Amino acid sequence: MTQPRLTVWNEYRHEHENPKVAAIYPQGIHRAIADGLAAHGFSDVKTATLDEPEHGLTQDVLDNTDVLVWWGHKAHAAVSDEIVERVLARVLDGMGLIVLHSGHFSKVFKRLMGTGCDLKWREATDKERLWVVSPAHPIAQGVGEYIELPAEEMYGEHFDIPTPDELIFVSWFTGGEVFRSGCTFTRGSGKIFYFRPGHETYPTYFHDGIRRVIANAAQWAMPTASAPRSFGNRAPLEVLPQAEQPVEQQ
Amino acid sequence: MTQPRLTVWNEYRHEHENPKVAAIYPQGIHRAIADGLAAHGFSDVKTATLDEPEHGLTQDVLDNTDVLVWWGHKAHAAVSDEIVERVLARVLDGMGLIVLHSGHFSKVFKRLMGTGCDLKWREATDKERLWVVSPAHPIAQGVGEYIELPAEEMYGEHFDIPTPDELIFVSWFTGGEVFRSGCTFTRGSGKIFYFRPGHETYPTYFHDGIRRVIANAAQWAMPTASAPRSFGNRAPLEVLPQAEQPVEQQ
Amino acid sequence: MTQPRLTVWNEYRHEHENPKVAAIYPQGIHRAIADGLAAHGFSDVKTATLDEPEHGLTQDVLDNTDVLVWWGHKAHAAVSDEIVERVLARVLDGMGLIVLHSGHFSKVFKRLMGTGCDLKWREATDKERLWVVSPAHPIAQGVGEYIELPAEEMYGEHFDIPTPDELIFVSWFTGGEVFRSGCTFTRGSGKIFYFRPGHETYPTYFHDGIRRVIANAAQWAMPTASAPRSFGNRAPLEVLPQAEQPVEQQ
Amino acid sequence: MTQPRLTVWNEYRHEHENPKVAAIYPQGIHRAIADGLAAHGFSDVKTATLDEPEHGLTQDVLDNTDVLVWWGHKAHAAVSDEIVERVLARVLDGMGLIVLHSGHFSKVFKRLMGTGCDLKWREATDKERLWVVSPAHPIAQGVGEYIELPAEEMYGEHFDIPTPDELIFVSWFTGGEVFRSGCTFTRGSGKIFYFRPGHETYPTYFHDGIRRVIANAAQWAMPTASAPRSFGNRAPLEVLPQAEQPVEQQ
Repeated sequence: MTQPRLTVWNEYRHEHENPKVAAIYPQGIHRAIADGLAAHGFSDVKTATLDEPEHGLTQDVLDNTDVLVWWGHKAHAAVSDEIVERVLARVLDGMGLIVLHSGHFSKVFKRLMGTGCDLKWREATDKERLWVVSPAHPIAQGVGEYIELPAEEMYGEHFDIPTPDELIFVSWFTGGEVFRSGCTFTRGSGKIFYFRPGHETYPTYFHDGIRRVIANAAQWAMPTASAPRSFGNRAPLEVLPQAEQPVEQQ
Repeated sequence: MTQPRLTVWNEYRHEHENPKVAAIYPQGIHRAIADGLAAHGFSDVKTATLDEPEHGLTQDVLDNTDVLVWWGHKAHAAVSDEIVERVLARVLDGMGLIVLHSGHFSKVFKRLMGTGCDLKWREATDKERLWVVSPAHPIAQGVGEYIELPAEEMYGEHFDIPTPDELIFVSWFTGGEVFRSGCTFTRGSGKIFYFRPGHETYPTYFHDGIRRVIANAAQWAMPTASAPRSFGNRAPLEVLPQAEQPVEQQ
Repeated sequence: MTQPRLTVWNEYRHEHENPKVAAIYPQGIHRAIADGLAAHGFSDVKTATLDEPEHGLTQDVLDNTDVLVWWGHKAHAAVSDEIVERVLARVLDGMGLIVLHSGHFSKVFKRLMGTGCDLKWREATDKERLWVVSPAHPIAQGVGEYIELPAEEMYGEHFDIPTPDELIFVSWFTGGEVFRSGCTFTRGSGKIFYFRPGHETYPTYFHDGIRRVIANAAQWAMPTASAPRSFGNRAPLEVLPQAEQPVEQQ
Repeated sequence: MTQPRLTVWNEYRHEHENPKVAAIYPQGIHRAIADGLAAHGFSDVKTATLDEPEHGLTQDVLDNTDVLVWWGHKAHAAVSDEIVERVLARVLDGMGLIVLHSGHFSKVFKRLMGTGCDLKWREATDKERLWVVSPAHPIAQGVGEYIELPAEEMYGEHFDIPTPDELIFVSWFTGGEVFRSGCTFTRGSGKIFYFRPGHETYPTYFHDGIRRVIANAAQWAMPTASAPRSFGNRAPLEVLPQAEQPVEQQ
């Protein structure tokens, strides 16, 4: 199976500002995610972060990325609109996109969804259990009936997104809430997967099940040799009847 | 059945600039649409146009609109971003939206879809036949198996939209193309219906079948007494276990 | 708003065999459901039960039913195939169908779904909380963010159904499971709503929120003046080219 | 990419009874389809036909089939109910299924859909043009914007199926009709693709584009290492509260 070329993007701010996060992710969240992808056999996994020039997402980087993974939280507003447009254009053109956790509020995801993307949340002592509701979907393959995370931030419904094309996971939280945790969308030629877990104060991206889901999604979101999407003025394919009177073009 | 308060918005430029269009729609496209809605029994149908102050879409007008009908074509760029944001906010808050024909390229529709919304087109001598593919949908009620328009602009696939929640009509064109002509979407609490027909050089909005579909959609898009959509930090609904060590809030 | 003519069907066996159930539903589960519908203003609510002639579902009864509510559990096999076919035909022809709780294993529901319709279950001391995930849907109107049932049987994923057209409720259970509790489907011209709660040993059908949802669904499932669904051999609507050689009909 | 083990099933009656069909498909429709799959690189392609013992679909054959292709037309009633049950069980258990053309009326497809599966039809001189409406879907990869068939039987809406999970192709016919020609469904763990073209009096299964779509679908419908689908009585995963009084099991 042809492998996608992967780029893992991380805001990379919490790790510098919060010793607790730095202790969990000493090389950054992006490094933990990239290592998980490498462990699943992907050989071309790059990383990029907010404070690099052009946020590490130059046109060249994006042109050579098949699937982009996005983690951001506290600095969504610091992502420049120019880079947002660049990423959007590539997604519509076929680049896959995996949006993780607090990336639900990123400019890129909100623009692709067209909704507010808000939700409920709580940082406390909840356990999370992600139940598979679409067991035959490639993103769920090799996962058990559910993934259990001993501690995570709670996200609760209502999650203000369009109806997903496919709903793969639904989360249960100790405190009494549920959440649509794994959702697919298609926008243009691009396949998008939103995956809930991964608050910065928990070692979620070292968890085997979470790593497997992200790896499955990376393969699933790989662009296909898409049928052409062409637009604009077109001559008829069949002979048209004569107009009774000439049609004036506007 | 409670009636929605309706506002029909029209760019209203072609009618002033092109005698052919003025001959078909002497009082404007908005007037023909509004008359069609009145003929179907709606008693509160207002109109608004681009060149009025605030495009006729003041906060007060929108706050008193249950369903907004949108026709625009050549002046999408002239719609101010402030008004676009105002309309978007109302849609997400529950106002219904019916986007007609070339409104596929309006700022409002593109923002709600998150895609390019492009398509193929031709102004020639095509006939259009809109086939009902979801006959039990309220928007199709009272419509026959298809609506036939003797002459219309052709719109052809690929139509660059997200997968619709529901597909109600598919169009056939003489020249050999098909198009997903009647599509529903939900964004936030707002119900959206895109309906293809209505090029300004054809008397489409006087057609009985087209008027009936727009009337059905106006009733369908009426806001419901939506379940609350609330967001933000939340205390648990169930007693949480003690943390082994305090969780530091970020 | 035109009201549907409603028939509430109940197996009505537990109430005769189990004193605990008889204590909760002395007049039968069907009576409690019908009373809830009447309390919401429906004036034409009939009931029918398994042990009546033709299970109370004569052709005449079905022909005069707009929406059928179905509760069954221990006697699915006792429903005759002839009556099943009769109900299926009416659903495909437009009659709405609300399938409650253990009705997931009824012959009618399994035939309409085409899948096994199995699930996980537990009778214990779980609390159920049904979260609204589609707050703008008519079935959720007037319901809060969730409905809480202090005690109910647990149903857990995976629920072996086709992807619902719309997902309205997702349940949380104390014991750690989630379930897609409110799902819509369209089959033929018939609208179907599956709604999870209502084990016979709990007074669920007296609960205000549950009654409201069933009432909302009864209105939603009302048949529309469906566009015609006609089938079979058809002459062309457009002039066809001459065949180079005659086409032999088979 | 791991290849599916394929079985192409054909009724194989027209070829024996109608010289015109025999002239087009001298070795049977199944052979033409199987050759097309082989030409796309699939190395394990078997065939089976109605008049073989057990219709060629022994338990052993099905257990060693990853994706089953189904062509039937005039002898749907001759397929034994026992074999139908066997095929259904394998589909729900994960075997992919590609249903071609008049297979829409097969017992297997109707049972999986739960609807009547009827449609309009005409054998005349129509041209068919299958437009891609989901260009990024793997089933459309390598296909152009449309596939054109110079002559085919017409199938027209309304097509009485549940809403497809994904709509990939929409057909245009000369005579004025449209049809949802390429539709995916999931039932249990099984992926299903319905594909319209292929009337027995046309050489459709030798067409490059049609062969490519069937090959793409064969790969797409390959079972994944599905997450487990387990059902039945379950102990709680979390500690439940004590019941105030014992709950009696029924």
